[in-house]
Order: sequence, then structure tokens, then C-alpha cells
Amino acid sequence: MKIHVMTLFPEMFSGPLGSSIIKRAREDQKLSIEYYQIRDYSANKHQKVDDYPYGGGSGMVMTPQPIVDAYRDILKNTGRENPRTIYLSPKGKAFTQEMAMELSREPELIFLCGHYEGVDQRVIDKIVTDEISIGDYVLTGGELPAMVMIDAVSRLLPGVLSSPEAYQEESIYSGLLEYPQYTRPQNFEGREVPKVLLSGDHEKIRKWRRRESLLITRERRPDLFQKIALTKEDYKLLKP
Amino acid sequence: MKIHVMTLFPEMFSGPLGSSIIKRAREDQKLSIEYYQIRDYSANKHQKVDDYPYGGGSGMVMTPQPIVDAYRDILKNTGRENPRTIYLSPKGKAFTQEMAMELSREPELIFLCGHYEGVDQRVIDKIVTDEISIGDYVLTGGELPAMVMIDAVSRLLPGVLSSPEAYQEESIYSGLLEYPQYTRPQNFEGREVPKVLLSGDHEKIRKWRRRESLLITRERRPDLFQKIALTKEDYKLLKP
Repeated sequence: MKIHVMTLFPEMFSGPLGSSIIKRAREDQKLSIEYYQIRDYSANKHQKVDDYPYGGGSGMVMTPQPIVDAYRDILKNTGRENPRTIYLSPKGKAFTQEMAMELSREPELIFLCGHYEGVDQRVIDKIVTDEISIGDYVLTGGELPAMVMIDAVSRLLPGVLSSPEAYQEESIYSGLLEYPQYTRPQNFEGREVPKVLLSGDHEKIRKWRRRESLLITRERRPDLFQKIALTKEDYKLLKP
Repeated sequence: MKIHVMTLFPEMFSGPLGSSIIKRAREDQKLSIEYYQIRDYSANKHQKVDDYPYGGGSGMVMTPQPIVDAYRDILKNTGRENPRTIYLSPKGKAFTQEMAMELSREPELIFLCGHYEGVDQRVIDKIVTDEISIGDYVLTGGELPAMVMIDAVSRLLPGVLSSPEAYQEESIYSGLLEYPQYTRPQNFEGREVPKVLLSGDHEKIRKWRRRESLLITRERRPDLFQKIALTKEDYKLLKP
């Protein structure tokens, strides 16, 4: 997959996207990421990229010209007509794992990171195919949300995760939160691992983990719990 | 505010937390961030920090000892009894702007970033006060979520945002998505700024913006729209 990022802060990206699984994916040529400094495309002699909003109000709005010119430069490299172009914004659709899966099937993605009061609406109308929010909180700009999306999407690319890693994702796809995990030592400062996990009885362990997942999902995320099709066994496990 | 981050990847943080508003907050001594490399606290001679899960299953779990020792080292520096300690995890409570406001009133925050299959549950039971998720998607580790939270919380610290920036947050606090923004030029490649924004009629502009906010919130986030107490004027604005 080829990723193109339009941003005023390209230097923010190298740390987070240079570690761990993403680093490996880039080294294996399964992923390439290029940055486009929006300021470099400004036709203004002071390289201005923002201006006051029409109709008044505080804050500055990013002007359309530098962004659209950066976009055209990307198009020259891609040769595609209408690539998926994502604008990170608090007023976007909520980002989900399903969306990450869908985007991971694209050959190419473009990210536009806004700052200040956001970008001129005409940019969104003209080039953006998906306006996306990673959550209901206010951030300084679109850079961290873009990194979050790039991380979520890249790990779904074929061959990026080793199979044991891929296996770990299942619990989240199932719509339940994960059961608690324990590792060595068996006794840590007086706290014991639950006996069932040491029993070697796989069926008992499976049921214990399922019950823990159901309980924690019901307690913390009633919205997810409501969507689960409970089995007969689940009802039995949930009986007090 | 003092922030302490326990992580296996401290090098991921410098870019995102060294730019823009966060950078200024640190320079103005309104915010300090310290990193604790969990691996440095491992008592294991190979500096191992993970092990197989009890009860079987793929993936590795972070062992309790290095994390708890790092935590004790932080406590030595803070002198506090029970500081807010946040573990980033897909099974946590959903992070919201209200939570960011609440956390911004703490003098000190500790973040624990997990990797692999997460951390041993006894660590969570022993030291974690808040288990938090930034959204329903799967990420490689807790580092990006920690940066997202640090960004959201820091900008709420007194004096970090200049007042025009602070003003911009209002629309999100109001529970509505933002209206579209426009800036110069008035005509961009054939696309015009909506006439009302050039009218100079403040009351008309206010109503237009309110209507746009209501429409976009109803369309994209019915969950938010349901929670709004609509005024008489709102009903009138929404009439086709």
C-alpha cells in the first residue's frame, strides 16, 4: 500500500511510524509512506497557509490553494483518477475496525491533516472522499489521528502481521472485550494467577475466558454487549 | 502538570509531543513529560519483559515485575500516594472530552503503554486507576493512544491555549459538529463562498451556521443529535 500524507508537521510522523510492526512493513516493502509539506505549495510569498474565516469568528482557516496544489502533485505520482482521500476532522464519521478493514483493501490512501479551525470547505468538497474522526475529543491537529489510522490499517495488510499476532485480533472482531491475561510468575507479590488457568483443562479455560469477556463487556460497554447474539452457553455462563 | 510515561518505545513520543501547542506548553513549564523504559527495569538477565500466557493462547503477555518496579521508581519522584495511573487498552472505558477535562485537573498523570497481548492483569489490579480506550479499533500498542490523550489533556491546562484557540473548542463542547468554514479567496477555481458569509449580517450568519451544524450533526452523528435540547429556533431552522 502507498500512503501519502499532506501535513504542516511532517516531522511528527517519523517516531510513531518508524517502530515495531509499521517499521517492519515498510522494510518489507508492504507499505510506503510519503509526506507532502503543505507550506511548500503555498503560492503566497510569505508561504502563508491560513487566513481569517469569512463571516467572522476566532481562529484561522487553512486556505484551499496550497492543499489542492499538493494534492495535484500526489496525483501526478499515483496516476489514479480519484484515490481515497481522508480528511481527519472532529465532524467526520467515527473510525472503526470495519472501516480499517475496508481501507486496507485500497492500493493507495491520501491523508489530509488539518490545523487551526480546519480547512476551507471547498477543499473538502473538491478532493476529500472520507471525512473521519477517531473519537469525541479535541486534538491539536489531524496528525495524531492520521497516525492512529495508518497504524490500524497497516497491520491489516496481507503478510504484515505474523500469524500469532493476527490471531490476537479475533477477540476484538468478535465484538467482545478481552478476558484478563496472566503470565509468569504464578505468585507475584502475593497475587495468584486464577487456578483454572493452571488446570490444563482446555474446556474449562475456554469457558472461564468466555465468561470473563461477557462480564467485562456487559459492565464497560453495554453498547457492544447489546449487539452480541448470546448463545445458550453464554446465558448459562452469565448466571450468578 | 507532570506526566510520566511507562513504555517499551520512548523514541516514538518525541515527534508528536515536540510540536505546536504541546511544545509551547513544555517550554512554558506548564507541562513536563518523562519517559520510563520498561525494559530497563527488567530483573531478567536478558531484559525480557514478556512471557507466554497462562492457560494457553497465542501471543505474549507483559510480565508484572518490570512494570511495577518502573511504577515504584515514578512514585519515588512524585511523593504521591495513589496518582492517577492510566492503562491504554481496547477494553477500557471510551475516552471523551469530559474525561480529558476531568484529567486536566490532576497535578500528575502516569501512563502505562502495553504491547503484544497486553499486560498481566495483576498489574492492572495493583497500580492502574483508569483503563481507557481511545476508540473501537486495533492498534499496535498503547503509545499512540497515550499521545492522543496527552494532547487532548494538555491543551486544557490553564494558560496553554491562547484565548482565540480556546474559543474554537466551544462548538465541540456544545455537542454539535462544526459548521463549514471558508476563507480567502472568495472564488476558488469556480467555487464560491456562500453569499450569506459575505453579507455582514451577523444574525443571519449565526443562524446559517447553527443550521449547518444541526444538519451535519443529524446526518453524521444521530447519537449526538439525540442528546441535544433543541430550541424553538432550532426547529424553525430545520424546517425544509
